[in-house]
Amino acid sequence: MEIILNLLPLTDSERAAFLAAAPNEDHIFCPTDHLTWSACSASLDKLARATVILGCVPPHMLVRNTSLKWLQAWFAGVDPYLAPGIFPQRAMLTSAVGAYGQAVSEHMFASLMAVLKRLPQYRDNQRAHLWRDEGKVRTLAGATVLLLGTGDLGCHFAGLVKAMGARTVGFNRHPEHPADHVDELHPISELDQWLPLADVVAMTLPAAPETNHIIDARRLALLKKDAVLLNAGRGNAVDGYALAEALRSGALWGAALDVTEPEPLPAGHPLWDCPNLILTPHVAGSEHLDQTLRNIAALSLDNLKRYLAGEPLKNRVL
Amino acid sequence: MEIILNLLPLTDSERAAFLAAAPNEDHIFCPTDHLTWSACSASLDKLARATVILGCVPPHMLVRNTSLKWLQAWFAGVDPYLAPGIFPQRAMLTSAVGAYGQAVSEHMFASLMAVLKRLPQYRDNQRAHLWRDEGKVRTLAGATVLLLGTGDLGCHFAGLVKAMGARTVGFNRHPEHPADHVDELHPISELDQWLPLADVVAMTLPAAPETNHIIDARRLALLKKDAVLLNAGRGNAVDGYALAEALRSGALWGAALDVTEPEPLPAGHPLWDCPNLILTPHVAGSEHLDQTLRNIAALSLDNLKRYLAGEPLKNRVL
Repeated sequence: MEIILNLLPLTDSERAAFLAAAPNEDHIFCPTDHLTWSACSASLDKLARATVILGCVPPHMLVRNTSLKWLQAWFAGVDPYLAPGIFPQRAMLTSAVGAYGQAVSEHMFASLMAVLKRLPQYRDNQRAHLWRDEGKVRTLAGATVLLLGTGDLGCHFAGLVKAMGARTVGFNRHPEHPADHVDELHPISELDQWLPLADVVAMTLPAAPETNHIIDARRLALLKKDAVLLNAGRGNAVDGYALAEALRSGALWGAALDVTEPEPLPAGHPLWDCPNLILTPHVAGSEHLDQTLRNIAALSLDNLKRYLAGEPLKNRVL
Repeated sequence: MEIILNLLPLTDSERAAFLAAAPNEDHIFCPTDHLTWSACSASLDKLARATVILGCVPPHMLVRNTSLKWLQAWFAGVDPYLAPGIFPQRAMLTSAVGAYGQAVSEHMFASLMAVLKRLPQYRDNQRAHLWRDEGKVRTLAGATVLLLGTGDLGCHFAGLVKAMGARTVGFNRHPEHPADHVDELHPISELDQWLPLADVVAMTLPAAPETNHIIDARRLALLKKDAVLLNAGRGNAVDGYALAEALRSGALWGAALDVTEPEPLPAGHPLWDCPNLILTPHVAGSEHLDQTLRNIAALSLDNLKRYLAGEPLKNRVL
């Protein structure tokens, strides 16, 4: 019999569906409110006995579990489990890739639209009770949007900007894979020749050594003066000091970052006070949009059925 | 021979097109930088002689012109010309309805997305160097958007929110007229029964006595606690004090206003400091998006050709 530790925040009907899908297994429901690493209300005893975990327990708490056969994470990026000595050998790990596409891409898109229309400046004026015209604004109609990363997030975002009349150009290590809503796909080695043509550069790259500071001072200098940079992947993909300098010197129209290096951004970092920058504290995904929770529950339920039937799991990482 | 006073900010090719369209008339080009009532660089002498004016001269300056046969305005709302004793008798007046649809609807849409994702609060946190999660956000996917006004602005906006997955319900004095991107059209007399179902109420009503405070405290109280109110039509369509009270008491998710009553909004008005409100100083239209200028030039050129050919003019008001 499996001992299924279910940490997901479920609706009543979702909970009933989990019970119905595995009527002969032992279910331990410890629902959490927040999709973080530390929000684990289960006791160490329950954690140590579980053969299946649906949700993210803090990596160090996994070390004592010798029974674990499968963990379904509620994050898309599961890199903390991949550090040496953390994840139990022979156990399977699946991610929640796909669950966050709508939430993250809508947040990126809202931030982009706000920057194009100068809403950060208008908000500051409003706080100062200042009725002042800030001049020219920009549109996505006819714009060229480069997508660094064409996974679930990048493709979902591509669909939103295409609906506004933009052209989408994707960059990927595997440009032979099809990507929804991406008009053209190129290898990332061709990025430099495309940067001078970009109106928007939208970054959704996963954590990887080769993407560290992929946008640095040199590449920022290749962009047009009215380009916009977005990052909702991992903070270390952008050199934050170089970006701050570009924004302060007027070398870019604006930027929006939901991720920074490091997080939280230190209080003295120059990015905080840059003009026409929207800075949000890694909140594009998480559980902020209800649909994300429903997506994670549906994916976990689907994978549980696959697991019990001995079929291959979706989003397998280990 | 016509004396055509052309006040439009034109590109070189647009200017050439005006000359080519009317090779035998007298063209006086006095281009302006800003589409306001007061930005008229033409001398009183030129104004008084013109038989055709392309652009908006201040209403009181028209009184001396006895030669005027036609004025093509660069505004969509030409109500200041309609006050008694202003516009020369027998002269024709055409508006720029249609030229502002993209600019105004994109501004409304950007403001709406920002409010749904709590970007005003995140901007304030950023200014305070505060890395703080503000919780739940909302989406347009599956949302019901009421459109008060289904003219050029309302229909263009309807197309944008539909692209995000919303349902659009329009209200109009003439619900029998077709309206692009509007899923259902109802008479404005049915508004009260729809307000409790709305996720968003988007107002683009023109100036008219019967729309004064059409959204007042009573109607605000009919809205859901997580509804959003938008106004980019005329400021007097919303009771600003009632809206401020609704926002401060948490009776609404948020709001975005590009127009207020009066304008500029007085420094002591309670709207300035409301939570999750985006307040912009009547800048959604104007000349802030280049495409608007191109639209106005194209409409004016088309109407000039019609005028010279003796054909009916587009957007005729008088």
